[in-house]
Amino acid sequence: MGVTFVDISVSLDGFVAGPNATREEPLGEGGERLHEWAVRVAGWRESHGREGGETGVDDEVMREAIDRAGAVVMGRRMFGGGEGPWDDTGWEQPWQGWWGDDPPFRSAVFVVTHHAREPLVKQGGTTFTFVTEGAERAVAQARDAAGGKDVSIAGGADVIQQCLRAGLVDEVNLHLVPLLLGGGTRLLEDVGGVELEKTRVIDSTDVTHMRFRVIA
Amino acid sequence: MGVTFVDISVSLDGFVAGPNATREEPLGEGGERLHEWAVRVAGWRESHGREGGETGVDDEVMREAIDRAGAVVMGRRMFGGGEGPWDDTGWEQPWQGWWGDDPPFRSAVFVVTHHAREPLVKQGGTTFTFVTEGAERAVAQARDAAGGKDVSIAGGADVIQQCLRAGLVDEVNLHLVPLLLGGGTRLLEDVGGVELEKTRVIDSTDVTHMRFRVIA
Repeated sequence: MGVTFVDISVSLDGFVAGPNATREEPLGEGGERLHEWAVRVAGWRESHGREGGETGVDDEVMREAIDRAGAVVMGRRMFGGGEGPWDDTGWEQPWQGWWGDDPPFRSAVFVVTHHAREPLVKQGGTTFTFVTEGAERAVAQARDAAGGKDVSIAGGADVIQQCLRAGLVDEVNLHLVPLLLGGGTRLLEDVGGVELEKTRVIDSTDVTHMRFRVIA
Repeated sequence: MGVTFVDISVSLDGFVAGPNATREEPLGEGGERLHEWAVRVAGWRESHGREGGETGVDDEVMREAIDRAGAVVMGRRMFGGGEGPWDDTGWEQPWQGWWGDDPPFRSAVFVVTHHAREPLVKQGGTTFTFVTEGAERAVAQARDAAGGKDVSIAGGADVIQQCLRAGLVDEVNLHLVPLLLGGGTRLLEDVGGVELEKTRVIDSTDVTHMRFRVIA
């Protein structure tokens, strides 16, 4: 049985998206900067159907995160809908999400949502399944689908928090970017009482990759 | 001329004190755990008049922080007064602060406060001077007093934030403790727009020592 892990880039002041997120700028002001390190590396580019990219320690960390995930859990906003300013009212119907025809996940993705809909089958092995029974059920389905590999709780912050509070997470990987966003979506909100053990720190020029085991 | 630096322990969820701080528990629930690494090392114990303690990488980082400070700036609550539940109404008068007869600073300490009072001279070279003209003036006085050595902005969070926003800080040192406090006093609140460059990461078993240069 694999582990259930969180793997996400976060600013030094604790945000996974900047302030004033909009449909055009879903990561908020400055939020794209959290992912510059990822977009630069070969492993991320390969998974997103792009050429080139850097190799090195950031790439190794990225490839490890991509390779280990046998299934993915995400929230409705990360899929591409949501209650925010990027609500799907008036959008392409049925809404296909942010991820295009060939999403990078190449596995089963379980989307925690209040809106039931049929699974959405994409190219390259990605199928989005919409789970209306909450995060715990989505994680259970992902564990079944992962076939012994690990389950990635991809985001957003609210789904990660729900999973942490419910004791569903075995490991937290934070890619700490030395950036102060000053506002936006906080990752670690109201998760007091979760006990962590730091198990790995890999530092590079642009980012510090930290790994923690959830011990209680 | 020395640099002006911040050096503080912070939880993974961004707090420098836990929730529900009281006179008996000024660091809030769980807040003492942020400082366990420090209390364990020989350099901290020596500066606080205690015997023993561990040597090693945490101790080296601690000694460096202690040795470089030629003067200190802190807020009124860190000195020991404040607008919180530990207000000085009814306390020993004149209130002598948290730090005892022989404080660990052994230098000039400038306390940012709204309450004018005469300087308080302690043993071992520590003098508390109360500055009512704001953080910028306190930093200027500390720079004069430091005699070419560095100036430590010791805390609390509000004074550090004021100094960051006013462009008074050259360097930020965070001792990141793998602990989720779930609430309390946030260190990096409303400091968007401050640009940092990561210059050093030293990882140990209990804490990750991160250093950033303020570049704008």
